[in-house]
Amino acid sequence: MCGIFAYLNYLTPKSRKEIIELLIKGLERLEYRGYDSAGIALDTSDSENITILKETGKVKALQNQILNKGYSLEFDVIHSSHVGIAHTRWATHGVPSAVNAHPHRSDDDNSFVLVHNGIITNYKDIKVFLMGKGHVFESDTDTEVVAKLMAHIYQQHPDLPFRELVEQAIAQLEGAYALCVKSRHFPGECVATRRGSPLLVGIKSKTKLAADSIPILYSKDHRVVSVSAGLQIPAGDFPRVESTSQFGPLGEDKEVEYFFASDASAVIEHTNRVLYLEDHDVAAVKCGILSIHRLKRGIDESHAREITTLKMEIQQIMKGNYSSFMQKEIFEQPESVVNTMRGRVDFEKGTVVLGGLKDYIAEIRRCRRLLLIGCGTSYHSAIATRQLLEELTELPVMVDLASDFLDRNTPIFRDDVCFFISQSGETADTLLALRYCKARGALIVGLTNTVGSSICRESHCGIHINAGPEIGVASTKAYTSQFISIVMFALMMCEDRISIQPRRYEIIQGLKMLPDLIKEVLKVDNKVQELAKELHQQKSLLVMGRGYNYATCLEGALKIKELTYMHSEGILAGELKHGPLALIDKLMPVIMVVTRDPVYSKCMNALQQVIAREGRPVLVCEAGDTETQAFCPGNFLEIPHSVDCLQGILTVIPMQLLSYHIAVLRGCNVDCPRNLAKSVTVE
Amino acid sequence: MCGIFAYLNYLTPKSRKEIIELLIKGLERLEYRGYDSAGIALDTSDSENITILKETGKVKALQNQILNKGYSLEFDVIHSSHVGIAHTRWATHGVPSAVNAHPHRSDDDNSFVLVHNGIITNYKDIKVFLMGKGHVFESDTDTEVVAKLMAHIYQQHPDLPFRELVEQAIAQLEGAYALCVKSRHFPGECVATRRGSPLLVGIKSKTKLAADSIPILYSKDHRVVSVSAGLQIPAGDFPRVESTSQFGPLGEDKEVEYFFASDASAVIEHTNRVLYLEDHDVAAVKCGILSIHRLKRGIDESHAREITTLKMEIQQIMKGNYSSFMQKEIFEQPESVVNTMRGRVDFEKGTVVLGGLKDYIAEIRRCRRLLLIGCGTSYHSAIATRQLLEELTELPVMVDLASDFLDRNTPIFRDDVCFFISQSGETADTLLALRYCKARGALIVGLTNTVGSSICRESHCGIHINAGPEIGVASTKAYTSQFISIVMFALMMCEDRISIQPRRYEIIQGLKMLPDLIKEVLKVDNKVQELAKELHQQKSLLVMGRGYNYATCLEGALKIKELTYMHSEGILAGELKHGPLALIDKLMPVIMVVTRDPVYSKCMNALQQVIAREGRPVLVCEAGDTETQAFCPGNFLEIPHSVDCLQGILTVIPMQLLSYHIAVLRGCNVDCPRNLAKSVTVE
Repeated sequence: MCGIFAYLNYLTPKSRKEIIELLIKGLERLEYRGYDSAGIALDTSDSENITILKETGKVKALQNQILNKGYSLEFDVIHSSHVGIAHTRWATHGVPSAVNAHPHRSDDDNSFVLVHNGIITNYKDIKVFLMGKGHVFESDTDTEVVAKLMAHIYQQHPDLPFRELVEQAIAQLEGAYALCVKSRHFPGECVATRRGSPLLVGIKSKTKLAADSIPILYSKDHRVVSVSAGLQIPAGDFPRVESTSQFGPLGEDKEVEYFFASDASAVIEHTNRVLYLEDHDVAAVKCGILSIHRLKRGIDESHAREITTLKMEIQQIMKGNYSSFMQKEIFEQPESVVNTMRGRVDFEKGTVVLGGLKDYIAEIRRCRRLLLIGCGTSYHSAIATRQLLEELTELPVMVDLASDFLDRNTPIFRDDVCFFISQSGETADTLLALRYCKARGALIVGLTNTVGSSICRESHCGIHINAGPEIGVASTKAYTSQFISIVMFALMMCEDRISIQPRRYEIIQGLKMLPDLIKEVLKVDNKVQELAKELHQQKSLLVMGRGYNYATCLEGALKIKELTYMHSEGILAGELKHGPLALIDKLMPVIMVVTRDPVYSKCMNALQQVIAREGRPVLVCEAGDTETQAFCPGNFLEIPHSVDCLQGILTVIPMQLLSYHIAVLRGCNVDCPRNLAKSVTVE
Repeated sequence: MCGIFAYLNYLTPKSRKEIIELLIKGLERLEYRGYDSAGIALDTSDSENITILKETGKVKALQNQILNKGYSLEFDVIHSSHVGIAHTRWATHGVPSAVNAHPHRSDDDNSFVLVHNGIITNYKDIKVFLMGKGHVFESDTDTEVVAKLMAHIYQQHPDLPFRELVEQAIAQLEGAYALCVKSRHFPGECVATRRGSPLLVGIKSKTKLAADSIPILYSKDHRVVSVSAGLQIPAGDFPRVESTSQFGPLGEDKEVEYFFASDASAVIEHTNRVLYLEDHDVAAVKCGILSIHRLKRGIDESHAREITTLKMEIQQIMKGNYSSFMQKEIFEQPESVVNTMRGRVDFEKGTVVLGGLKDYIAEIRRCRRLLLIGCGTSYHSAIATRQLLEELTELPVMVDLASDFLDRNTPIFRDDVCFFISQSGETADTLLALRYCKARGALIVGLTNTVGSSICRESHCGIHINAGPEIGVASTKAYTSQFISIVMFALMMCEDRISIQPRRYEIIQGLKMLPDLIKEVLKVDNKVQELAKELHQQKSLLVMGRGYNYATCLEGALKIKELTYMHSEGILAGELKHGPLALIDKLMPVIMVVTRDPVYSKCMNALQQVIAREGRPVLVCEAGDTETQAFCPGNFLEIPHSVDCLQGILTVIPMQLLSYHIAVLRGCNVDCPRNLAKSVTVE
């Protein structure tokens, strides 16, 4: 949520038009993180001041505003070196509006201008303090206090270098942030920092870089005083840290471009060389040279940040022939599940090896229990696979929503193994739960779709689900790949158990068939579209099932909620008689998932009860299962049969398609559902 | 679900009018178990045949039908000895209709007429078999096969005594049942039996009874062949069991009345002397003498069924001045929570002793983990107390829905302690989960409101929540008493831990205050009624909160679903950003529970996000918390402050009241919500 982007060109002349286009393009790539408003800041054409351009709504609206201004922006003026920052917002504090849009500024002179992703939880205290000092606020956001705080510090200590000034300011902040700051007082310089929200730096240069990593510098002797009630800014001199190490391109002119972004999709079209900042890193660029600072040295910290090469392809983040990223991602699933299994499952030998867990599997087998923790769709992937994990590992398996897990201060023990599931690897609640468990000595296993993400880096070991970049806000292919990843883990856990080999074999053969079966399921698209036409004007929708398909109901209902704003709810069919059956009459739309698994007869009981109450459910059932279909003549979607524990991968796809088609029919923006954003980096 | 009732008078002359009134009154008391249709069967006035009277809808409809027939029923004829059976139905197989109503019969001659509570899962096989033999079916029910099966056996073995004939028939049945059977061939006799569904016998006599218990007789040598495909009825002679022991009143005339009923509320106005039948018991009355038979002797079985004295008072099952049982039960909560704590919590000494657990507490403390299992509201009481259990016991605590727990074949270990929570103590899924865990060697703790219920009897130890009879289908006072019972258990678990004593003291003092605080909350009733007027025409309603109040959201939403048929959903506020926020706009009704507990600031974040999306939530918040109330001016319900972990007892009450008032405004029957029934005794 919220995307931040900054572009710094040093000795690389660019026209203002090019710079603006580059910032806008960066925002478009990050738009899935928030689309309540957008804004950019760049130098005025005479480089004497800063121009801020903002607009409510999507990036497109900002772009139109800029085109209308056209002439006044002096598109043709060339900046040899320049810093531009940009932001696309997902509103948390303050309604979506131009005044609450980023960049925010310190004062009418635009002394400090910044973009922020996260939530500053103590912003009220800081605001009261600064208002007492005469600062006048123009927005309802938490972010504005950060810009004004920097101006305040600058007034008191005009000699502080930019980077140290930022360090002083962030020392006062509580909460989560990724920040990029530019300042009229420090032209050509950019300072970026993070705590809790993701941030990476892309580097582009024609000449060879001086090193493959950037050493970290420490500001050991800084005196920073943080007082929560009645904020105090330390007076007096600050000891300086001498930069003993420099980073930048080799060669005479040292031309270089830097990109700061919330994630890699915004930089991949410019460069594939990136470094991921860690919490508390302060990255500063001055005279084209990037340095990374930390306040103090921790235990076991690395001494440098590696520059890594992105493996992402630009095509992966383009829509191609599809009308939306979500549609593309639904139809990619026959391939994405192959990518998840590639090099891991040997269908001939019947073996499964997850490279990232190989060295830990013996320890995991000895554990007291498994915990699976996630939010939203990731949580549902844990629900979907819990039964199989219980069956194949014979361990107690607990599944928790990250926020509830944290709220409860759940007891965690040294012999627990905790899985943290997050597509982005940056989900704030999941990351905090990870740290909570790590601090209590549990073994931490990350399960993400994003190499280099915070959850990746902070786990002891992990599984990369390898579904390829997912841009649609509503998760689809990541769900099926998370599902398969946990199935592979379960198979790896029981490879030594003789009694379970027939079951293992059955499941591995089931995995082999999956890509073809998913292709089969996708053929139901037209029929789903017809069903969507019948349903799209409803207010409510219930999705029912049990056993392996319960997660499909939860996930299907969530997709419909997210995309269509229809009140849908996933209901455990076994709970029907304990309340939800009261909702059933001939008007209430109901979808029931009934497959030929061990709970088939119980599902049929539920189906009969719904029909006895005049409900007319739509079935998701197996192809050719005429006995079941006879209960709902003409009113069913067929999916092929698979192994019981994999059936949920097939049953969820009609639900994904249904939410897509209903959203289109209701005129909703499929890739950018209202109020939501991908990668929830605030609590 | 489904209530069965039978009345047998032996040498106690009653007019037909008295008998019919008595049967109808019994059904009214059981009506909360189902109200899709009702029916009774009694002898014709000449005792030559059987009259069956049935009607769709509530018992009242049947009563009206009988009044209309008036004359033809010959109300004034006296039966000196007579058997009448009666039934109120909750439809599972076959829509609610007169033809599907019970009693069901074997043939046009009414040879065998019976009432049934439960589901016969193999009814299709039996039906096919009997149709092959020429039997013609008149209903869509599973029950009808039982009556026809008895007639079939009777045709083949006309010499079999009634009780043995019933034994032969039930040996062919799979599924759950409680049955009462009468027959033209055995006038004055009644046979009743159960497996999985509750059944008790009430005994009334002017003279002293012969004994305080009834010995069990065994039919060891019975040859019963059960063949699922292609049913076979054994041919040849059956060895007879001689009744060596008799039961009945002493004295010359041996006058006696027997009442068979699904639960005690139907018999309490006639007698307080009851005995609870166990699964597989076959109770038969012949010549006024009651005998109890079992097919074979199990291990550790008792040799007799005790006659116990009901402590229930008739006032407890009357509405008094309230318009419905539910309203009465909501307003009873200041007293019911006192009854739950009476004799258990010593507020002076700060001690808690649960008599039913005393001998097991050391073993429980040594366990590997606690599991809490229930359905519907009982499940929510586990969610509500999970965090406190985790805090005070430092054990892993798993909470599961009984049906999902069974579907998953969850691994259970000998060192697990499993709690089974059910108001009625008869909830089928919960009871099956109990047996599953017991078979795996876990310690079983029952938590019910019904002494003598199946869960009570099959647990190793337990807690009686002592809330008094709950008649309203939607559970209210049982929830708060379940909640307090688990809190008391948690307090008992940590009595030896020094470090936790301040917390224990705080909670015990909080419990002491509860009755007065509940009285305070109930004063909000008028304001809730106003709110109900605003909300009652809505289609959807979201209830949000987190931490200790999450369970209140789930339970509040369930109450509204059950009673008002409005699509309401409880949403964890921490999951808002992962989907549900898309539903928020200025039209979607939202209730948010925000109290001053450790998650207050997180709840406020959620509240701000809802407001930023133009939502206008109604708050349930603490009295005098003007800072929070300022976010929703005039739009809040105040409840008093309590200890964080008890706050959920107070926040749920406005939700109970709200569902009640909305139901009244929508014209729904509060005590008999559509499609539902109390005490879900089928899977």
